[in-house]
Amino acid sequence: MKIGVIGGGQLGRMLALAGTPLGMDFAFLDPAPDACAAALGEHIRADYGDQDHLRQLADEVDLVTFEFESVPAETVAFLSQFVPVYPNAESLRIARDRWFEKSMFKELGIPTPEFADLHSQADLDAAVAAIGLPAVMKTRTLGYDGKGQKVLRTPADVAGAFAELGGVPCILEGFVPFTGEVSLIAVRARDGETRFYPLVHNTHDNGILRLSVASTVHPLQALAEDYVGRVLNKLDYVGVLAFEFFEVDGGLKANEIAPRVHNSGHWTIEGAECSQFENHLRAVVGLPLGSTAALGASAMLNFIGEVPPTEQVVALADCHLHHYGKAFKAGRKVGHATLRSADAATLKQRIAAVEALIAKV
Amino acid sequence: MKIGVIGGGQLGRMLALAGTPLGMDFAFLDPAPDACAAALGEHIRADYGDQDHLRQLADEVDLVTFEFESVPAETVAFLSQFVPVYPNAESLRIARDRWFEKSMFKELGIPTPEFADLHSQADLDAAVAAIGLPAVMKTRTLGYDGKGQKVLRTPADVAGAFAELGGVPCILEGFVPFTGEVSLIAVRARDGETRFYPLVHNTHDNGILRLSVASTVHPLQALAEDYVGRVLNKLDYVGVLAFEFFEVDGGLKANEIAPRVHNSGHWTIEGAECSQFENHLRAVVGLPLGSTAALGASAMLNFIGEVPPTEQVVALADCHLHHYGKAFKAGRKVGHATLRSADAATLKQRIAAVEALIAKV
Repeated sequence: MKIGVIGGGQLGRMLALAGTPLGMDFAFLDPAPDACAAALGEHIRADYGDQDHLRQLADEVDLVTFEFESVPAETVAFLSQFVPVYPNAESLRIARDRWFEKSMFKELGIPTPEFADLHSQADLDAAVAAIGLPAVMKTRTLGYDGKGQKVLRTPADVAGAFAELGGVPCILEGFVPFTGEVSLIAVRARDGETRFYPLVHNTHDNGILRLSVASTVHPLQALAEDYVGRVLNKLDYVGVLAFEFFEVDGGLKANEIAPRVHNSGHWTIEGAECSQFENHLRAVVGLPLGSTAALGASAMLNFIGEVPPTEQVVALADCHLHHYGKAFKAGRKVGHATLRSADAATLKQRIAAVEALIAKV
Repeated sequence: MKIGVIGGGQLGRMLALAGTPLGMDFAFLDPAPDACAAALGEHIRADYGDQDHLRQLADEVDLVTFEFESVPAETVAFLSQFVPVYPNAESLRIARDRWFEKSMFKELGIPTPEFADLHSQADLDAAVAAIGLPAVMKTRTLGYDGKGQKVLRTPADVAGAFAELGGVPCILEGFVPFTGEVSLIAVRARDGETRFYPLVHNTHDNGILRLSVASTVHPLQALAEDYVGRVLNKLDYVGVLAFEFFEVDGGLKANEIAPRVHNSGHWTIEGAECSQFENHLRAVVGLPLGSTAALGASAMLNFIGEVPPTEQVVALADCHLHHYGKAFKAGRKVGHATLRSADAATLKQRIAAVEALIAKV
């Protein structure tokens, strides 16, 4: 069984690390000469719209999946003529566009911040009048890690903001006074079976995920599963999907979905019976799903810009290093550490130890 | 950091799966066109004595290690001129020859079955007279998985046995009425720090390991650690070493050592805090060692000849599949399953479930 992956970054790399023991081979289509997944499979170096190379990929593999959601719709449509593609085109179409995404949440009765579609500065001005300030303006597509968005606090922030984000279609979201950000990683099999990992509490810095802590029990687990289940079934989704929420007044408001394995699920490699990477692969190839149960108290810390010296990371108790083999560069995710401890109190100490290392870099 | 591995089979493959997250790259020197580790690194396809390709390997990597002990001494000596080689040449020299190995056990005061060196049928006849029957005759070098050995029960078995095993140097070992076979996986760092995994109880079929069950507590753990520690220090060993013992009268008799990661340690991938593969790499590159503590009650079952259907293996509770990506062939190790359960009673049921699958194949 050979799996084609669109994108050859760290998510592709970790998919291959999970899939190789299942007997799978991998081919990654990625234009970057230094795509870090290439160490673990074939690297088809081509643009995502290059039909000759997409055809080559389709001919070589049994199915295709993705490591990022902003794959062009034409790419998905083209590949789908020749080979199964999971998750399906509709899931990607919705997830790559914040307007479609939020509209789906609303349609499914999932609470989400107030939002409006923007195609001009006039739309923005009208939306601000209706929704109020502060608010967050985001490009409908291609935003990630805090890119493609702007917080609007004052009328001065609003003036010219549409041009500032590139004059592209955007949405305005009402500001939500959230007490925390959580994500639910879910996996749905071809036959519709669905499993959920424990809710994860996430902390961001400048829009980039810094710390994810898996909960053991969480009062909102059942509610989150209900919401995410609605989306999975609506999309007839196959594979891992990550759903980010704001915690508001003891409830949840939907932020966004990612139709793929997700940074806030990296802790599952060591911290769950079966990782998000293995479960994604099991789902897309039609194998039975693995257990999403946690093994202890786990957390994940991102290494952004650079990985602290290996000998210092691996010397820490309960700590597992994941070095992506990428060149170090400010603001770039180049690795992470998973902590798996016996209990929450120990985990807290371990997190502090990794944070101290990161602060020294 | 790039690691050279002599041999590109499943042990090399699992080394690469463990080392990639540490930021390591791999090159495997192996003459086989279908070496299964090649999916995870560079494959230098050449004979083990091919100095041009050994030189190429040495030039490309930071250090060299091995996945099997019968590497020619000349290969080790040649490589050592250019690049660090772990474990050291002396460890390989001893481990690849049963006479040197047993003599070392004796010298270090480690109980081992009676043994004699054989260079002719006359030597064999004399040794049988001294040691008695039943006894086991083994080639001094190149034996594995029950190959290169013969059990001698009667004088008829003895007649012509030297020629039968190829007329090569052999040893005769007195038969030991053992109650069980156990192995201890140890790892020693460059600075001499040593750690031990829990003792593993092993079951063989026709000389091939079939089942390894990790113990939680074992009354002979401390004794085994004492014996293995003597060998590690004597050899100034660096890396993972496996030591197989017979359990006899509540004590231990040394059987053999393997200067490498070992089949009876495969359960550590899921069953220990830090696997034998990661710990071997940590040791040889000079990183701090990882914890050898067990995570639950674990066992490993080999898939010999073929891997049962993937969908059936992964459907089993507590079960983790390791498919080596090798062509199926009778008697060949082509994969294994790790079971990691909450307790020994559950583990016993899980083992029965995997055994039932194997029996169906």
